[in-house]
Amino acid sequence: MTKTIGVIGGMGPAATVDFFAKLLAATPAERDQDHLRILIDNNPRVPDRNAAIVGRGESPGPQLAKSARGLERAGADVIVIACNTAHAFGEEIEAAITAPLMSMIDATADAAMARKPSRVGVLAADGCRRAGLYQRAFEARGVEPLFLADELQLDFMQLLYRIKAGDTGDATRLRMEQLATGLNARGAEAVIAACTEVPLVLSADALAVPLISSTDALVARVVAFAIQG
Amino acid sequence: MTKTIGVIGGMGPAATVDFFAKLLAATPAERDQDHLRILIDNNPRVPDRNAAIVGRGESPGPQLAKSARGLERAGADVIVIACNTAHAFGEEIEAAITAPLMSMIDATADAAMARKPSRVGVLAADGCRRAGLYQRAFEARGVEPLFLADELQLDFMQLLYRIKAGDTGDATRLRMEQLATGLNARGAEAVIAACTEVPLVLSADALAVPLISSTDALVARVVAFAIQG
Repeated sequence: MTKTIGVIGGMGPAATVDFFAKLLAATPAERDQDHLRILIDNNPRVPDRNAAIVGRGESPGPQLAKSARGLERAGADVIVIACNTAHAFGEEIEAAITAPLMSMIDATADAAMARKPSRVGVLAADGCRRAGLYQRAFEARGVEPLFLADELQLDFMQLLYRIKAGDTGDATRLRMEQLATGLNARGAEAVIAACTEVPLVLSADALAVPLISSTDALVARVVAFAIQG
Repeated sequence: MTKTIGVIGGMGPAATVDFFAKLLAATPAERDQDHLRILIDNNPRVPDRNAAIVGRGESPGPQLAKSARGLERAGADVIVIACNTAHAFGEEIEAAITAPLMSMIDATADAAMARKPSRVGVLAADGCRRAGLYQRAFEARGVEPLFLADELQLDFMQLLYRIKAGDTGDATRLRMEQLATGLNARGAEAVIAACTEVPLVLSADALAVPLISSTDALVARVVAFAIQG
């Protein structure tokens, strides 16, 4: 008997579609009935994570916890969040459920370690950086995380909001590539797409070093967990 | 306050991803918080609808009803099913919930009427045909539905199962186009993609007559309903 995956989504919705599509692609299946049951709460009304973490808005914690509880009640055996920054509220979510919350941060850091890097470049949103999620994950693994310089981080945030508004065009792709390549030039031996909007405009073949997608890392881990039953 | 949409999905999963992506595309939004809350139960373990309708398998009715109830309990204000054939179990689903079940069949037939056809070609799975879903909908609107001849219907069902197995390649696309064009040649003034797998391999520009996608028709209706609040 396989496990049911519960996905807290909507941050943003297009990243949740991408996460859902990749869950299917990662599942060995020939017919509908071979696929996993997946429950999704695409709740884009969750207050802005970045604003809350920098102290400029309502906390999304209670809504994320409620979403997790609803998914568990509907039958989810394991909960995932299709958003890195929202993991800053992980403890509040875990306190609301009995099912395990499988971390996108840990899955991504572990996937990066397969490349044995000593330095990784991390493309992460302001809130995710401010909350120290990847700093702690990589420091625990003896790896130095490199982030964008402040003025480039501003560009990166603008790109994220453009992607959320539906702009995945060439200019957006090119700028994202430049930001990733810049981290590589500073010595990163791998680049981490530490925000689920990044893979919507950046693919591995655009870079000279490995690109570790947080979406792919968590998808691979949770599908393996769910299939094993 | 907008309404929350509950989607009974997984029949098949790729069609549910397509339905989800089109819900987002149909929603006017500049940022995450402008989007609608969407709850999805991607439950591919629902017994085969076609097999059940022809009396060769377990009824999916109880599982569909349970799924609808779960979505309602999690906060859905309106329920939709991202599968035409499953509408054969509509009464059993409606009996399990208090929220409205918005019909894909009615939305699609109404969308077709905007073209004022006297005859429409209907690409529908065996179970959907056997249950008479589109026959009743079009007869009530004074329109004659044309279906595939028996030997072509066998081809169509094989195509659907190929799409469900992930084959959306050129040969599958070409065969689907031929089946649609054949209905057009027999006098159909519009072709109805009356199965949510069809739009995965057939686009409107492949046909000389309008293609009415059941996915698009229901997406447009439910987004309008949810936005109006």
